[in-house]
Amino acid sequence: MQTIRFHLDFISPYAYLAWTQIHALADRCGAVVEVAPVLFAGLLNHHGQKGPAEIPAKRRYVFKDTLRRAILLGVPVAPPSSHPFNPLLALRAVMAAPPDAKRALVDGLFAATWGRAAVKGIDRAEVVESVARDAGLDGAALVARAAAPDVKDALRRATEDAIAAGVFGVPSMQVGAEIFWGLDSFDLLEHHLRGEDPITPELLETLLAIPSSAQR
Amino acid sequence: MQTIRFHLDFISPYAYLAWTQIHALADRCGAVVEVAPVLFAGLLNHHGQKGPAEIPAKRRYVFKDTLRRAILLGVPVAPPSSHPFNPLLALRAVMAAPPDAKRALVDGLFAATWGRAAVKGIDRAEVVESVARDAGLDGAALVARAAAPDVKDALRRATEDAIAAGVFGVPSMQVGAEIFWGLDSFDLLEHHLRGEDPITPELLETLLAIPSSAQR
Repeated sequence: MQTIRFHLDFISPYAYLAWTQIHALADRCGAVVEVAPVLFAGLLNHHGQKGPAEIPAKRRYVFKDTLRRAILLGVPVAPPSSHPFNPLLALRAVMAAPPDAKRALVDGLFAATWGRAAVKGIDRAEVVESVARDAGLDGAALVARAAAPDVKDALRRATEDAIAAGVFGVPSMQVGAEIFWGLDSFDLLEHHLRGEDPITPELLETLLAIPSSAQR
Repeated sequence: MQTIRFHLDFISPYAYLAWTQIHALADRCGAVVEVAPVLFAGLLNHHGQKGPAEIPAKRRYVFKDTLRRAILLGVPVAPPSSHPFNPLLALRAVMAAPPDAKRALVDGLFAATWGRAAVKGIDRAEVVESVARDAGLDGAALVARAAAPDVKDALRRATEDAIAAGVFGVPSMQVGAEIFWGLDSFDLLEHHLRGEDPITPELLETLLAIPSSAQR
């Protein structure tokens, strides 16, 4: 059975939309979803890039695009209590949660960010605690565990591993060595999982070998 | 009749793919396409952002994604002779061309960059000249005209106007004050042109008004 490693950060509305669709895609293709929290700010720092929220025109566009996509997909959306916000506690909580509870926890954390949860703001410990409780976990214990050095290290390592695998944005769906970036890559991801990836390795190598004008 | 202002730079393979699809979309919706050359590097500079070609992981991804999309769309694709390259001459030539010749000229310039034209490399005057001839123009005269100060100014102004309209990447399709970015926004562009844009202005305003954590 193929595994889709779903790299996410709660900061991204596209990660939310993609998360609401990924399990149906996995079911259709007989694949499983593995949650991989990463710090988007870490990806941006590594690549020396600004986030969409730091570019006013892009921030505006991303919110419009998210809203249009959410409405077309029938996904509930409501503003987060702040944005950008510090996602570290929520990401570490997912890292620290038992494997079989991660999906429900991520559902709850996304709902408390971009969805219509009653209580929002996952940068606050009491909100993460309450979301964890709703996911059937000991909320206080999970929040305490999220602060442990080995959990912090695990998130840092997951972010480094994602970078090493070629991830530069969220959501990114990784299948083996292949990365698919963004909600709009879902059709390509599905082709790939079905063994119908249209890519031609020879042409790809030719493209990647193009010299820049400076080198010519 | 609605007008789709198609902001393009030949540097972008997505602009190529989108260009091959935009006229069919316009025909379906009873709209017309207006060519708007812009300097992508100017957009990036304005927003303090790196281009995809400057981030190795993203460059690799973009070429893969382009290739997959091109094959699925049945669009011919072949490596440009160099990348990135200086697109100024080609952009200015489009700016200087008579309105009714722009479409054929853009077709030819894209084919000589990302398509399977026999001669490639639109950073060279002789290539632009020959593409212009194939488009029914006086190639030598167009290349000479492309170097005139008012043509250079016109490209600079078009780039500034695009930025003022909220454009941060190419291709961007502008309909009135609305911007749609990228090939993957074509479905949203079509909804918009048909008067079926799903966006809810009230929710958008709420999203745009979200404070950052720092402000809270």
